[in-house]
Amino acid sequence: MEKIEEEVKKRTVVELLTEMKNLAQLSVDLAYSVLLFGSPELAEEVRRIERRVDELSMVLKAKLALAIRDLEDVRHLLPIMELTQSMEVITDAANDIAETVAMGAEPHPIVQKAIAESEEKIRLVRVEEGSELDGKTLGELRLASETGMHVIAIRRGSTWIIGPDKDAKILGGDVLIVRGRDEGYRKLKKMASGRG
Amino acid sequence: MEKIEEEVKKRTVVELLTEMKNLAQLSVDLAYSVLLFGSPELAEEVRRIERRVDELSMVLKAKLALAIRDLEDVRHLLPIMELTQSMEVITDAANDIAETVAMGAEPHPIVQKAIAESEEKIRLVRVEEGSELDGKTLGELRLASETGMHVIAIRRGSTWIIGPDKDAKILGGDVLIVRGRDEGYRKLKKMASGRG
Repeated sequence: MEKIEEEVKKRTVVELLTEMKNLAQLSVDLAYSVLLFGSPELAEEVRRIERRVDELSMVLKAKLALAIRDLEDVRHLLPIMELTQSMEVITDAANDIAETVAMGAEPHPIVQKAIAESEEKIRLVRVEEGSELDGKTLGELRLASETGMHVIAIRRGSTWIIGPDKDAKILGGDVLIVRGRDEGYRKLKKMASGRG
Repeated sequence: MEKIEEEVKKRTVVELLTEMKNLAQLSVDLAYSVLLFGSPELAEEVRRIERRVDELSMVLKAKLALAIRDLEDVRHLLPIMELTQSMEVITDAANDIAETVAMGAEPHPIVQKAIAESEEKIRLVRVEEGSELDGKTLGELRLASETGMHVIAIRRGSTWIIGPDKDAKILGGDVLIVRGRDEGYRKLKKMASGRG
């Protein structure tokens, strides 16, 4: 609960809404990838996002409760409550998909035949301490041009950097959520493993 | 119904799933912008997306029903049904937010004070026939460098091109969904109006 109390104090409503919205969109992306490519690791990320959005929702509701002084406030803040609720609905929905798939269903041939070998996939890369990626910014690494892989989010413990820019720094222990082809993925995994 | 029958015949499951997923994510983005900036025009786009996703869902369910031969098929196709359902839930949720806001609530001061004049917003630009944009590709126009505006989607009637690349061609009658600052928006609007 300490973390939640701290966030209630320190973060603005718009910051919290933005984080929820970005996480909700990311969870839809990941759930879709789980369905197409069936990765239990990605399904776990969808679950994590769902838990984080629940947490953010608590923080936001606490903040709003503190901000409400009269009925006029209630009327104006209802849409924000509505959005908060919807982001929970969305991440729950994404989680349902991921769980259904994680329970063991292989993609149906109707899906499989549409996925060419060359197709871009979303996957996870764990960054080891002391690896080539550890301590570098995305700008320094030029991953997109070096490996063809696009970093769509960085997870650090229970926080996410979504759509990181070139100044975002990668640290040992981070999980990168990346989009790209098989070849680039292999290259990037090597760079992240300390055996680059 | 003719359009739906045609789509059942011509489009693949993965194409349909991808379109639904992209539309669901776009609708979350737009609903969030409606909440922050309160635009009835954007709320209308959220409604359109919701209707289109319902339509795609019908197409997809018809395709799946046709593909099912035995119980094994049912088991494998359940996750796709689940995803389809979830995309409807998500766009419904986005539509709920947009409607709540469109019913007349101005952003609360708690939100307003966080939105600086310089903040990037999502807005619509209608392209007039014969305007500077009509018939050109995004690559030819170099809108991002010329105006600082980023085209996140193009709506043409009841279809969307989401995340258009440099080869995407803009036509008169298109609605561009763009992200950027006030100044760039004014510039782009002029280019779209035929009085550029």
